[in-house]
Amino acid sequence: MMRDLQVDAMLLTTEPHVRYLSGFFTQFWHSPTRPWFLLVPLDGKPIAVIPTIGVTGMQQTWIEDIRSWSSPQPQDDGISLLLSAIRELPRQFGRLGMTLGIESHLRMPANDYRQLETELSNMELVDCAELMLNLCNIKSAAEVDKIRYICELTSDSFVALPGFAQTGQSEREILRSMRIDLLQRGADHTPYIVSASGQDGYGDIIMGPSDRLLEDGDILIIDTGTVYDGYFCDFDRNYAFGYASDKAKRAYTCVFQSTEAGLLAARPGATTTDIWRAMWSVLEAGGALGNDVGRMGHGLGAQLTEWPSLTATDNTTLETGMVITLEPGMEFEAGKLMVHEENILITDSGAELLSKRAADELPVIT
Amino acid sequence: MMRDLQVDAMLLTTEPHVRYLSGFFTQFWHSPTRPWFLLVPLDGKPIAVIPTIGVTGMQQTWIEDIRSWSSPQPQDDGISLLLSAIRELPRQFGRLGMTLGIESHLRMPANDYRQLETELSNMELVDCAELMLNLCNIKSAAEVDKIRYICELTSDSFVALPGFAQTGQSEREILRSMRIDLLQRGADHTPYIVSASGQDGYGDIIMGPSDRLLEDGDILIIDTGTVYDGYFCDFDRNYAFGYASDKAKRAYTCVFQSTEAGLLAARPGATTTDIWRAMWSVLEAGGALGNDVGRMGHGLGAQLTEWPSLTATDNTTLETGMVITLEPGMEFEAGKLMVHEENILITDSGAELLSKRAADELPVIT
Repeated sequence: MMRDLQVDAMLLTTEPHVRYLSGFFTQFWHSPTRPWFLLVPLDGKPIAVIPTIGVTGMQQTWIEDIRSWSSPQPQDDGISLLLSAIRELPRQFGRLGMTLGIESHLRMPANDYRQLETELSNMELVDCAELMLNLCNIKSAAEVDKIRYICELTSDSFVALPGFAQTGQSEREILRSMRIDLLQRGADHTPYIVSASGQDGYGDIIMGPSDRLLEDGDILIIDTGTVYDGYFCDFDRNYAFGYASDKAKRAYTCVFQSTEAGLLAARPGATTTDIWRAMWSVLEAGGALGNDVGRMGHGLGAQLTEWPSLTATDNTTLETGMVITLEPGMEFEAGKLMVHEENILITDSGAELLSKRAADELPVIT
Repeated sequence: MMRDLQVDAMLLTTEPHVRYLSGFFTQFWHSPTRPWFLLVPLDGKPIAVIPTIGVTGMQQTWIEDIRSWSSPQPQDDGISLLLSAIRELPRQFGRLGMTLGIESHLRMPANDYRQLETELSNMELVDCAELMLNLCNIKSAAEVDKIRYICELTSDSFVALPGFAQTGQSEREILRSMRIDLLQRGADHTPYIVSASGQDGYGDIIMGPSDRLLEDGDILIIDTGTVYDGYFCDFDRNYAFGYASDKAKRAYTCVFQSTEAGLLAARPGATTTDIWRAMWSVLEAGGALGNDVGRMGHGLGAQLTEWPSLTATDNTTLETGMVITLEPGMEFEAGKLMVHEENILITDSGAELLSKRAADELPVIT
């Protein structure tokens, strides 16, 4: 892939990319102070250019060439060391890949990126974001096993939830209980767990949990990205409290059927847009007013969300080994949303559910 | 501060900065797909330029001018909308601030940043990273209350740890129990909890937890960044298992005394380097071979680590209202580290502990 892109090396700066190509796995990326660099030459093993605090950890990986500086050092936080490592590389194309495009950012000060550009004046910096998306997109069996494990464990926690959630509790209390339940079942941690609730439906799916107390007639959605060994699940479940109104039940059934259509459409050779269309037609027939999410599913794995996106225009062709979410959602009356989500693996014979399928009728917690 | 920097507006892209200036608080930043922009004009309220999925959430903040587009849309993910918002702003200096320098990154594709630069050809993009560091660095009473709450709660969990940790357990098991204990005490979540262990000391402080089983004679360090309402604590504790060797006890006492020296040195008007020197002189007298961490403390708050750094050259003057960690550490024999950490508030009269002071003798879990 690097030869096709005609780059002599790639320079990677973010946690998922450095982990993917080095095996370096640490929570320390939460500290934004220090940059970390992995240089992947066209031939041979990657070279780590990292703060001294990470050398012992990097030595536990398959990386052999580890260069370090005592960071933080704001005047020159690894840049001169990095430049000399880049200049030592064999040169064939005179091009260095960095993630500059779709779904990417550089985890380093923009001024340091500008300095690289200036000092490497005889080398062109070109975008390798798409290369990395295409590389990480097809999951190995080992990666799928981790995602399946966390999907199953989280499915079980959702099934158990009516045992620890009830009318009168706040969203915050219920989600705290679910965090504990997930840990007790063997999850490593839950970086992402949000909720929303309201009579018959909810108005939002990315804020929360709030201190709102659940009332009879409410619908509660919980959406979680829970992690095992660095791999995410990402799906949600809906619950009615006390009773479910007919319109809430109808919306639930419509979105459930939309997921069914997505499951049938998801196979190698189909596109993300084919799935989007299959799911949206069910929602539209069911009276959907719109969808502010901007897509109805996406890749996942080492990150909560990964490329591609299930939209009307994405048109990415599915391949065996991709792991994606199906996430149909709709506004079914003003300010009332219903959203479902499942995680699937694309196999030669179609979609394989990684999450355990949601109940086909809206669960009611009484 | 913006007038001093001569900028007509600042454009912010990261979670802590957008949250600080808008009140927009969501876990959704875990999804790297969509960019989020907050434009802060010299006069008037900030303008949010955000994906439609976040509009309902942003409406709950004090932001009134919310402009949105349906994201993901890789060809133009908010850039044309952002450009038109920037062009509408009153112009006095012809300069737009973005975080380009120290401890910063841009959470948007570098190609989109380049496009902004090209299309805003009559506007200079200048660094406002230092402005944001200086702004966020002095904590309000409300911010201090949140940090104090999470520090106290986490201190209590560390004190309780001997009740749920014992020889024969793995680091991973112990940290899982501590995660649960922290949630039960009222923490929101624990984005960061790492550990290391070994006979008499440990070799690293940013990896882990590992599956290593604790043995008698081991020292275990646990370092955690646990969060309440968006604010972090960041400190560690050490435990001996079974018994503590004399050299481990000596190292512990030395690092404890180093922290005492830091507590005395930390007051308004002193510099980060004064504290570093006070702490390092104790470690050096105690036989320290070195320190690969690169610093002995740092700011904290809305992020696990914030500017400034306690180093030999940082020289930042402390002011009332800063919250920092004191984190002396040393290699006391080849491959054996001992590191301590406390969180403090700088007050008019000196350092106020936010974490409850570690035991003055190495705790032994028997």
